[in-house]
Amino acid sequence: MKRLLVVAAVLLMSAATWAQQALWGTAPVVSPEIHSDNTVTFRLKAPKAVSVQVTGDFLPARPIETPRGVWEAPGIADLKEGKDGVWEFTTTAPLKPELYSYSFIVDGLKIMDPSNVYMIRDVATVTNVFIIGGGRADLYKVNDVPHGTVSRMWYNSPTLGMDRRITVYTPAGYETSGKRYPVFYLLHGAGGDEEAWINLGRTSQILDNLIAEGKAEPMIVVMTNGNAWQEAAPGESSKGYTVPSMHPDEAKNTVEGAFELAFPDVVKFVEKNFRTKKGRANRAIAGLSMGSFHSANISRYYPDMFGYVGLFSGATSKNEKSTSPVYADFDAKLKVQFSKTPLLYYIACGNTDFVFKSVTDYRKMLDENGYKYEYYESDGGHIWRNWRIYLTEFAPKLFK
Amino acid sequence: MKRLLVVAAVLLMSAATWAQQALWGTAPVVSPEIHSDNTVTFRLKAPKAVSVQVTGDFLPARPIETPRGVWEAPGIADLKEGKDGVWEFTTTAPLKPELYSYSFIVDGLKIMDPSNVYMIRDVATVTNVFIIGGGRADLYKVNDVPHGTVSRMWYNSPTLGMDRRITVYTPAGYETSGKRYPVFYLLHGAGGDEEAWINLGRTSQILDNLIAEGKAEPMIVVMTNGNAWQEAAPGESSKGYTVPSMHPDEAKNTVEGAFELAFPDVVKFVEKNFRTKKGRANRAIAGLSMGSFHSANISRYYPDMFGYVGLFSGATSKNEKSTSPVYADFDAKLKVQFSKTPLLYYIACGNTDFVFKSVTDYRKMLDENGYKYEYYESDGGHIWRNWRIYLTEFAPKLFK
Repeated sequence: MKRLLVVAAVLLMSAATWAQQALWGTAPVVSPEIHSDNTVTFRLKAPKAVSVQVTGDFLPARPIETPRGVWEAPGIADLKEGKDGVWEFTTTAPLKPELYSYSFIVDGLKIMDPSNVYMIRDVATVTNVFIIGGGRADLYKVNDVPHGTVSRMWYNSPTLGMDRRITVYTPAGYETSGKRYPVFYLLHGAGGDEEAWINLGRTSQILDNLIAEGKAEPMIVVMTNGNAWQEAAPGESSKGYTVPSMHPDEAKNTVEGAFELAFPDVVKFVEKNFRTKKGRANRAIAGLSMGSFHSANISRYYPDMFGYVGLFSGATSKNEKSTSPVYADFDAKLKVQFSKTPLLYYIACGNTDFVFKSVTDYRKMLDENGYKYEYYESDGGHIWRNWRIYLTEFAPKLFK
Repeated sequence: MKRLLVVAAVLLMSAATWAQQALWGTAPVVSPEIHSDNTVTFRLKAPKAVSVQVTGDFLPARPIETPRGVWEAPGIADLKEGKDGVWEFTTTAPLKPELYSYSFIVDGLKIMDPSNVYMIRDVATVTNVFIIGGGRADLYKVNDVPHGTVSRMWYNSPTLGMDRRITVYTPAGYETSGKRYPVFYLLHGAGGDEEAWINLGRTSQILDNLIAEGKAEPMIVVMTNGNAWQEAAPGESSKGYTVPSMHPDEAKNTVEGAFELAFPDVVKFVEKNFRTKKGRANRAIAGLSMGSFHSANISRYYPDMFGYVGLFSGATSKNEKSTSPVYADFDAKLKVQFSKTPLLYYIACGNTDFVFKSVTDYRKMLDENGYKYEYYESDGGHIWRNWRIYLTEFAPKLFK
């Protein structure tokens, strides 16, 4: 009998490895390969392909004229075929520190890099990602620092009449410290959901790193789903594996005030279920694009709720078509909000963003009324690169 | 000024939609399309392709002779090109309820379906997934039931000398019930990590659904990282975006006893940070393949820790090459374990699994010694389909 009890585990594992390789094919090449000088080589084994290209935000953008103005499409570069059908492209210059995304285009078909399992979904699109470390980009990496907890949970919203999914970051030490923490509510843009900031925005890495460096206060970060008609991110609700969309009918519903009106449901849930510090000095709200619009509206409509407000790549606007109380008496409500002197009213925008003009107009209006705010202007447009930057700028200013 | 404050939000969103489409190209076709009779159509727009195939576990397996015996590779089917370069394949028969995975093969290159954002990583391979509902497969769906919380957190293991990542499911109501819960420790196989059970295993969906139906007790499920040399899943540690691997050197380290010896660090962390019921009647441990090996070892080496033990597609074995105390005195330790009468010692295996013989041998040895266990045999091999089934069978037997 003893002979039968062979050391099976190693066998199991090697057999599994072999099965794995046979089953799906292991990556035959290394891609992307980040060289010591921060040039990067992309490789794809595609012996039958006629054309292989790489497209991504690490390449010089291609300005494209459109009816709405110039739009900067990500660049495209050609890979060259070498031996064994392995195609290759190396960047001509080192890449700056950043989190980059890319895809291959094989004979006109956009595909993901089979050698790279790291990918991020943005609305209905999945792309591969890689990080060039250094400078600010080191905040986007998982470093050897104490890590917070990221929880996907559900809260009940009586106002919206549904259970809704929410992502909550609690800082390292939360579980055992016994302390209370301030709360930062962080809102996504159109097409996003409660997964956007934690995945594309690198929220947990940025907060882990800023807190470890002593640059940000330990805080809870709450990432909501800002689509009032939706319970959860695609695939995470009982609607099943639906195609993520920004269908105009659904998008329209994001600006009828329901999400903003229901926001106290979120705050109530968080303050009941986590050890939070109370009061506006311990609550911040910020968002990108549509989330900026939501943050401006929520903080204006509930002027005692948030001491800190961040508007990233978006401002707010009157909405005279809506009958929601959220949009009523815009000027009067804004006056009330600023009469209470926000601890920080922060606006950030890229200077080539298509919302740059409307943000500039909003700033003028604030200036004309003597409403004080802090302004941060970056290069570039309406992209996650900027929203990560704004998060690294905004978070250190909170709760101090 | 008022004129400047146009309703920008709708514009923002339509512009973003448009940018999104221009940027990455929206999915031009619906794929997979699950018809009302549970036949499924796969589509890919690839006008320049010469050959498009689909491969996945929904197709009849292709038996392949290997030195280790017959291995069942997933089937392959050809798509046919229709108009506008859209290739299509529809299954000849309705598919049985199940969670299926698949990929396309375009001119020999395996790619993911660009119309389907739902994908799962298994070791170094990412595949698309879809679910045919009905029967047991309804347990794998997100249904309209109360949902638990899934937290990714870090615990300190003094024994292994590192902070390590862990995935914890707490049942719906945990946050507010004030109650204490039993704990089920659920271990992955070789090449897996703390993401395997929650993603491939559908743990949170299965537990949400079983608990909602009253079939399983509300319980905490703890999914560890069983690779003692590793802090966290690939991409989640300070090692960065490494290629997931089952390198023989690393795999070898999984059977030298370190993970098993250090397991009390996990239990201590969980019982300190969650409201748990104590004692072996409130602790279960189970695992698949290597995790089965680990579960058998841990429960044998710490015979008072777990009342419930589940061995999925794997048993255990002597390891006479190792000097770890975990493997010493195998027979005597097993005798001690069974002298304490486990509340459940459960073994499950597929009848075409390559470990079927070694599991059968292990069962014989238990029988010869009069050690009682429960046995569940399924069709099929060493695959996630079976491990999900075993979880749905095992979880309802716990803590009753």
